Amino acid sequence: MKRVIVLGADGYIGWPMAMHLSRLGYEVMAIDNQVRRAWDDEGGTASLVQIASPEVRLATWKKLTGKEILWRDIDLCDFEPLRAAIREFQPDAIVHFAEQRSAPFSMVDREHAVRTQVNNIVGNLNLLFAMKDEVPDCHLVKLGTMGEYGAPNIDIEEGYITINHNGRSDTLPYPKVPHSFYHLSKVADSQNIHFATRIWGIRATDLNQGVVYGTHTQDTALHPDLATRLDYDSIWGTALNRFCIQAASDLPITVYGKGGQTRGYLDIRDTMDCITLAIENPAEPGECRVFNQFTEQFNLNELAAIISKVAIKAGHSPEILHLTNPRVELEEHYYNAKHTKLLDLGLIPHLLEDTLIESLFSVISSNIGAIDPVLLEQPSVTWSNGGNEVWQKYAKTSVSSKMEDEIKEIVNRERR
Amino acid sequence: MKRVIVLGADGYIGWPMAMHLSRLGYEVMAIDNQVRRAWDDEGGTASLVQIASPEVRLATWKKLTGKEILWRDIDLCDFEPLRAAIREFQPDAIVHFAEQRSAPFSMVDREHAVRTQVNNIVGNLNLLFAMKDEVPDCHLVKLGTMGEYGAPNIDIEEGYITINHNGRSDTLPYPKVPHSFYHLSKVADSQNIHFATRIWGIRATDLNQGVVYGTHTQDTALHPDLATRLDYDSIWGTALNRFCIQAASDLPITVYGKGGQTRGYLDIRDTMDCITLAIENPAEPGECRVFNQFTEQFNLNELAAIISKVAIKAGHSPEILHLTNPRVELEEHYYNAKHTKLLDLGLIPHLLEDTLIESLFSVISSNIGAIDPVLLEQPSVTWSNGGNEVWQKYAKTSVSSKMEDEIKEIVNRERR
Repeated sequence: MKRVIVLGADGYIGWPMAMHLSRLGYEVMAIDNQVRRAWDDEGGTASLVQIASPEVRLATWKKLTGKEILWRDIDLCDFEPLRAAIREFQPDAIVHFAEQRSAPFSMVDREHAVRTQVNNIVGNLNLLFAMKDEVPDCHLVKLGTMGEYGAPNIDIEEGYITINHNGRSDTLPYPKVPHSFYHLSKVADSQNIHFATRIWGIRATDLNQGVVYGTHTQDTALHPDLATRLDYDSIWGTALNRFCIQAASDLPITVYGKGGQTRGYLDIRDTMDCITLAIENPAEPGECRVFNQFTEQFNLNELAAIISKVAIKAGHSPEILHLTNPRVELEEHYYNAKHTKLLDLGLIPHLLEDTLIESLFSVISSNIGAIDPVLLEQPSVTWSNGGNEVWQKYAKTSVSSKMEDEIKEIVNRERR
Repeated sequence: MKRVIVLGADGYIGWPMAMHLSRLGYEVMAIDNQVRRAWDDEGGTASLVQIASPEVRLATWKKLTGKEILWRDIDLCDFEPLRAAIREFQPDAIVHFAEQRSAPFSMVDREHAVRTQVNNIVGNLNLLFAMKDEVPDCHLVKLGTMGEYGAPNIDIEEGYITINHNGRSDTLPYPKVPHSFYHLSKVADSQNIHFATRIWGIRATDLNQGVVYGTHTQDTALHPDLATRLDYDSIWGTALNRFCIQAASDLPITVYGKGGQTRGYLDIRDTMDCITLAIENPAEPGECRVFNQFTEQFNLNELAAIISKVAIKAGHSPEILHLTNPRVELEEHYYNAKHTKLLDLGLIPHLLEDTLIESLFSVISSNIGAIDPVLLEQPSVTWSNGGNEVWQKYAKTSVSSKMEDEIKEIVNRERR
């Protein structure tokens, strides 16, 4: 039996991943400090689908499947407990989701930018050092993002590109033009991981993941207490979720800017399979392998049209509204990102079909009373000016000091 | 009269830079928290040339030239004092040297890696936010390093490269394969600065500087109390300084590995001119301009040969020893880095000549009694295993907690 640690196991993908691996027969240690729930409390955001506590989730999982997932409440920025857990468990692979993962959150103000980069970069550095010290042969499976690349005018390759230049040639890390302070933290992580593989011989797979949609996996569907998050606000929600909830609530579908922004997308069930494939086919010692983890490309207008079509079938009359884009990004651009390496390993994609959207609509319908209309209002964080009044206030009062407390906590713990 | 802030004005280049700009008629605010001196005290390292305190330096400068340099004792990771100083002084340009700048220091252990990345990345982020808030039209002149690029098998361009790929073309940030956790922090800075220019329209010049040598500028030579540092230990010293001091002390010149490691070099007087040229020809709003700031390329064997030749003339009989390389790097490689942009602006280089080495030998001779033989011993930090026993002990006892205190300080101050 193989042993896997899932870092960030309380999150949208982390929790289904822990169950998925447990069901497949892996021995799983799940680690999370539940800071994502604290950020919801602070910011007034919430998952549309109610989620159970880790205790209830683990107990339900054990009751229904007989399988036990070990749980540890650890902040990755807190090195000694992280190292101790890794030493104790001796994992063959570590899947790392444990990062602040919202671009708008990172753009609220200076505190949020600093918090995001310190949290993600220090957590990831700590993990690399703990692996070197305790489990140098373990395989790191790190969640990055397609947003690291930006929107270049040439094909996006998987992590590296062969450049012919002035009669010579080299294969180098693909140049990155990331979209936010959050995406920048992921680029810094990728660089640190690449370096660690070169100097220490660590095995690593860096997964540049597209936008994940869907809430149901084989495991989350077993019982309401196993459900995972469904975020739809402008901080944590993705466009696909927000569009569906807007259409189901008979509100206009709001597209940022011209809507030509193209990104890679994938079904949460494919995320389960991709990561399992990465674990089952580990990188070599010293190898920093990069996969682009998505199955299809859409631009926002295409997404809005697909969702409109399903909404009309369901009896709604969705209007599509183009808002002033709160982000600084190209709204019409070339986008062609390669994604063959996971297919080569055997991935069979679930493509975005009406049935997926219909199933999302049905989840939304069952929770329609829980929708907070404030969270569906226009974008609250702009790339040029940061958070709107709500977030400014939040940032300047409770959160600013809370944020500092958290950063302080990160470094303080190490002294104990 | 133009106003310039020099960040890191107590450092090897920062101090001469503050004087240089003051002499040219700029109004100068010099900012430093003197942490470099604290790191010397902690690690047992020292500049060969004795350096005066900031107070004595400023008083001497005023006495000899009649010019006043404003001084502020500020840590860049301490946002509010930084912002207040910028608001008060309203600079036209800010020159940013204020970072932990030693690769071996960053490789001692986890604490040093984290300390380096937090210090450099947070300080630089704070500066970007302070500029956006207080002086959005100010020009940032940021010191990066040629080490950000690594040693690719194609020509190194200045910051960006035009890539032709699958029938399409784009000009993108040059791919980076940095050499250490320190160099990685500089890459993260470059990425954050590039982003800030895109979203906020800040003006920035990112200077990828080569290895700087020499101690005399027109200003440091005026009086011993205006002298700048001369580091020769394996943490803070560069190969050129160390080779000279070894030869002058009749010790073997120690080359790491095969000695084919090629880097860009420049005279400290050229650094003065390059930065002045960058200030006098500012980047446009929203432009992130990158210059490769060096004048000549040498590999370690060439450097050792040049220094040997001068040493022999001076009556020494230097032996060249190849040590096991403590770093993970290519020891024989292609290296051709472009550096025309500063020449185009009018730079007239001081190339490395026997006279420069002779002048370094004469500085060394006047301080020969101050050489600490322990600091000339074999490399004390390896890339695979971190600090040697001395540094391990240092890291595990006094410094480990000191390091944590410092990081804690960084984030703590913001709560006051």
